[in-house]
Amino acid sequence: MKTYTLISILILATFGCKERTIADEKNYPTIPVKEVVLDSLNHPWSIAFISNVEALISEKDGDLLRVNLESKEKQIIKGFPTDLTDSIRAIHFGDNSGIFDVLVDPDFKNNQWVYVSYTAKKAFGTTTKVIRAQLKNDALTNHQTLIEAAPFTREYYHYGGGMTFGTDKKLYVTIGERLFWERDEPEIPIAQNVTDKRGKIYRINPNGSIPKDNPDFGPDAVLGLYAMGIRAAQGITVEPRTGKIWFSEHGTIQGDEINILEAGANYGWPNVTSGKLRSKDYKPPTIEGVAFTPPAWFWSHTVAPTGLTFYTGNEFSEWKNNLIVPGLSRGSLWRFRIENETIESAEELFIHDRVRSRKVMQGPDGKLYMLTDEDDGKLIRIQPKIYSKTQ
Amino acid sequence: MKTYTLISILILATFGCKERTIADEKNYPTIPVKEVVLDSLNHPWSIAFISNVEALISEKDGDLLRVNLESKEKQIIKGFPTDLTDSIRAIHFGDNSGIFDVLVDPDFKNNQWVYVSYTAKKAFGTTTKVIRAQLKNDALTNHQTLIEAAPFTREYYHYGGGMTFGTDKKLYVTIGERLFWERDEPEIPIAQNVTDKRGKIYRINPNGSIPKDNPDFGPDAVLGLYAMGIRAAQGITVEPRTGKIWFSEHGTIQGDEINILEAGANYGWPNVTSGKLRSKDYKPPTIEGVAFTPPAWFWSHTVAPTGLTFYTGNEFSEWKNNLIVPGLSRGSLWRFRIENETIESAEELFIHDRVRSRKVMQGPDGKLYMLTDEDDGKLIRIQPKIYSKTQ
Repeated sequence: MKTYTLISILILATFGCKERTIADEKNYPTIPVKEVVLDSLNHPWSIAFISNVEALISEKDGDLLRVNLESKEKQIIKGFPTDLTDSIRAIHFGDNSGIFDVLVDPDFKNNQWVYVSYTAKKAFGTTTKVIRAQLKNDALTNHQTLIEAAPFTREYYHYGGGMTFGTDKKLYVTIGERLFWERDEPEIPIAQNVTDKRGKIYRINPNGSIPKDNPDFGPDAVLGLYAMGIRAAQGITVEPRTGKIWFSEHGTIQGDEINILEAGANYGWPNVTSGKLRSKDYKPPTIEGVAFTPPAWFWSHTVAPTGLTFYTGNEFSEWKNNLIVPGLSRGSLWRFRIENETIESAEELFIHDRVRSRKVMQGPDGKLYMLTDEDDGKLIRIQPKIYSKTQ
Repeated sequence: MKTYTLISILILATFGCKERTIADEKNYPTIPVKEVVLDSLNHPWSIAFISNVEALISEKDGDLLRVNLESKEKQIIKGFPTDLTDSIRAIHFGDNSGIFDVLVDPDFKNNQWVYVSYTAKKAFGTTTKVIRAQLKNDALTNHQTLIEAAPFTREYYHYGGGMTFGTDKKLYVTIGERLFWERDEPEIPIAQNVTDKRGKIYRINPNGSIPKDNPDFGPDAVLGLYAMGIRAAQGITVEPRTGKIWFSEHGTIQGDEINILEAGANYGWPNVTSGKLRSKDYKPPTIEGVAFTPPAWFWSHTVAPTGLTFYTGNEFSEWKNNLIVPGLSRGSLWRFRIENETIESAEELFIHDRVRSRKVMQGPDGKLYMLTDEDDGKLIRIQPKIYSKTQ
């Protein structure tokens, strides 16, 4: 028997050490590959996980859905606000309208609050609106309007609509400037006017009330104002290590940027930009005594960066705490390694597998997903593939 | 005794498994950091390792050196060709002249052959020259001229001079086109003229004779011609997995490229470029019946890519078989992941630690080094730093 015990221990010991193949793998690259989890989504814009396998997905030109990543079941959420308009229902040149971001409350399990941004219409125009409602039996109930970025206009671009909860449990929201041409700017540019709701970033309480510790932009400033000088920001996310909020912004001719959100900051649009203005004869008015906050990063080509996220999973160890940024125009995925507030390296991924990408999101189990902005939009899982010696 | 044996086995097994801390590290990123190995180099251009700790370094504006990476000793190699000229000794606007690449023979231990490219001068101008000589007692002896890219002209730009041995043991050499402005092109552009030695890539035997299996460019073609349509290529290297040769090329206004070398290929300069021509009124003549080979990659901003290399070391497991490219203008380092001949991802490294970089080279022990193009030029080792939980 003793011999058998010895052999058993040896086998066990050997088996235990077999797991060291993980160590061996350290010598082989882990590369990202795409796996389609769901398709037939109508230009999906955002995703909010309810569990490891269930999520809400907002379709820009469709519905708010509850989806199951395993059974592939899709359920349309009823009770979406009736003032919604999208670029299918109301066709205008370059129309960006539709459903944008969806978030669930940090305490969703207990309170069922869901936050949605979308294009709301009135008789003579549209604007960005943020509501919350409680999700019960696949229907939104108890709707509350949190932000309505009046005026309603016939400019159908750059609604913004990015949302994130800060580590302070406040809701941060991007509202776009809505113009396409700078020549259409009023005397005080929209994003530089503290009395205009557009071209700003907001910080509000989850119920829509205004936090007392918001920055002071003076007595005439719109309520909830947190930062200004924004052109077209969609992606906004929290860096888990630091609590800092980062957001992406679309430039005009180049000038796509990554910015770090600071209370009271002015990001300069249209007075300063890392790109070029579209209207060559337009000269922004001089604004005295303002320090414009420069971007943390800008591209010299068009990327159209959107719903970014910080990666904290374990599948791609080299990506730990990196910022992942999808892009509509360029169609690749960007990975930024950051030390404090400095971008140390920037990697363009999927260069030969490009697709318009709206959103990157990490699931609660640390898996990484992306949404593609297509008629047949997809939820894609970014899988790690470990190279073997034979490759 | 049996109990002791059992305990010993258990201890051994446990000890064996302890090495799994390497596996733990799989969960933390490995980041590159710079460590200066040697300084006070006079615009170093290239490095050829003789052993793990000894190498030859060519200084563009100085000497050919033998250096010891541990003792830091530098020894000037005597007997360098006397027709050398550099941008210090002969000052002209934008002068690129000097010592360029240095290679040692694959069988260096037995034959001591060293290959050097540099700017040679005659009374009325300069050109790129490639010689080989035997290194004995820190002196070059038994000089042989392999290539002399006549004519000697007063254009002091774009000498090329990149060299590599192929897996076929042939010597591949880049010779630049030498013009700064396209308006100075002759009727048949230099790089498109098979009778002109400039703007070409050569394949020769180590003794300067011409391999019989070189591509056929017709009876008037210059000897050793392997590919044409080159503007200003410096970096040239072999991909160890495939034996393919890759080279970097400087564009004009943008248009910096990475190309894959193919026998008989025409890379298109100045008829096609991924950048813009400097002389706006210049129109290259139509060239009939020629298929131009597109680059594997081009940048939309200026990088000035130079001495590239494939990484096959183990210190950066995620970089295995990746192409590493330094740049003079941009000053960062680029890492390309390649599948077959397709670039899958591109990472810009050291974004906030930029320095003009001329050459990246892997030592025989797999360590990665770079040379900085400065008055106080440096040999830098790129060290792996593994992040711990606390970071």
